[in-house]
Amino acid sequence: MSGKRATRLTPDQRREQLVEIGREMLAGRSLDALSTDEVARRAGISRGLLFHYFDSKHDFYRAVVRAECDRLTAATEPDAALGPVEWLRAFIAGFVGYVLEHREVYRALVRGAAGSHPVVADIVGETRRTLAGRVCEGRRRLGLPDVPRLELASGAWMAFAEEAVANWPAADADAREEICAFVEAGFVGLLGLLDRPAALTPR
Amino acid sequence: MSGKRATRLTPDQRREQLVEIGREMLAGRSLDALSTDEVARRAGISRGLLFHYFDSKHDFYRAVVRAECDRLTAATEPDAALGPVEWLRAFIAGFVGYVLEHREVYRALVRGAAGSHPVVADIVGETRRTLAGRVCEGRRRLGLPDVPRLELASGAWMAFAEEAVANWPAADADAREEICAFVEAGFVGLLGLLDRPAALTPR
Repeated sequence: MSGKRATRLTPDQRREQLVEIGREMLAGRSLDALSTDEVARRAGISRGLLFHYFDSKHDFYRAVVRAECDRLTAATEPDAALGPVEWLRAFIAGFVGYVLEHREVYRALVRGAAGSHPVVADIVGETRRTLAGRVCEGRRRLGLPDVPRLELASGAWMAFAEEAVANWPAADADAREEICAFVEAGFVGLLGLLDRPAALTPR
Repeated sequence: MSGKRATRLTPDQRREQLVEIGREMLAGRSLDALSTDEVARRAGISRGLLFHYFDSKHDFYRAVVRAECDRLTAATEPDAALGPVEWLRAFIAGFVGYVLEHREVYRALVRGAAGSHPVVADIVGETRRTLAGRVCEGRRRLGLPDVPRLELASGAWMAFAEEAVANWPAADADAREEICAFVEAGFVGLLGLLDRPAALTPR
C-alpha cells in the first residue's frame, strides 16, 4: 500500500499500473497538469523507467485517455438482445452511472480535452462518435424515422446529458433514477421529435 | 499593421490592445498555450511592459476571458420590450451568431476552460449562470410554469445548443436560420415540456 517497496510486475502489469495511477490523478486536474514525475513516484519507480514503457509524455497521456474512453464505451454498450425501450434505457443508465462515478475524471478528460488537448482529440472524438452512433441506433430500434442532422442532434443530446449529470447537485447521490428519467425525457423531447420540429408559441 | 513602429497609446488603450491580441490568439489554442511573450511581440512592446499593465500571466488571462465573456453576455441580451416569442428568438439568434462568429475562441475558452483552467472558472461560471438565467426568464415570458431543476435544465439546454452550433458543418456558413430553428426546436422539446416529462415508448 505504501508503494515504497519495489514490486516485481510483468511489463503489461506495470504499464497497466501506470495508466491506472494516471487515471486516478486525472480527477480534479487537466491532462496538462498530470505530472509523469508524480506518476512514477506513486508507482515507486524512476521517471526513466516510466519512459521505458511509454515513448513520451504524450504517449502516456494517450494511453490514459484511451483506457478511460474504453471504460466509457464498455459501460454504455447495452445487451443487444434487449427490447428497444430497455436497450435505450440501459444505454442511458450506463452513461449516467459512468459520469456519476467518474465525474471529475470525465470533466477533465472528455469535456476539457475537447478544447485544450489536441494530443488526445482523436481518441475523444472517436469515443464521442461511437456514443452518438449508439444514440442513433437506439432511435432506429424505437422505430423512429431517419432525419437529416441526426448525428449532429445525437451529439448535441449527449452534451445535454453530460451537462445535466455533471451538474446534478452532489447531495443527490441517490438520485440516479431521477437523473435517468430526466435524461430520458430529454431524449424524447429532442430526438423523438426530430421529424416534426416544434417552434415557439406563447401559452 | 506591421506592428513594428512603436505607437503611443494611453494606458487604457494599451490594455485594451493587449487584451484584444490575446482574444485573437486564443482562436485555435488553449489558454495555457497563450504566450504573453508572443502577445507583447505582436503589440510591439517588451514583456516587461506587458506586466506593467497586468499583475501576472493569470491576471492577463482573466482580462482576456472577461472581455470575451462580456461580448457573449452583450450579444445575448434581447431588447426587454420584445414580445415573449421574439425575445427568446433574439436570445437564440444572439447566441448562435456569437458562437458561429467566434467558434474557435468559444471552444478554447467557454468550453475548454470549464475543465482545465481553474484560474478563469469563476468568470466562465458566472457567464454561464447569466445565460442560464436568461433562458429561465425566456421560459417565464412564454408563460411556462416553474418546475424543479429549471436552472439545471437551462444549463443543459445551453450545452445542447453549444454543441449543435459548434459542430454544425462549416460548409453551411449561410445556415444561420436553419441552426436557429434547430436550437429553437430543442428549446421547445427540452424546456417547453419540463412540466410534463415524457418517457420512452416504442412506435
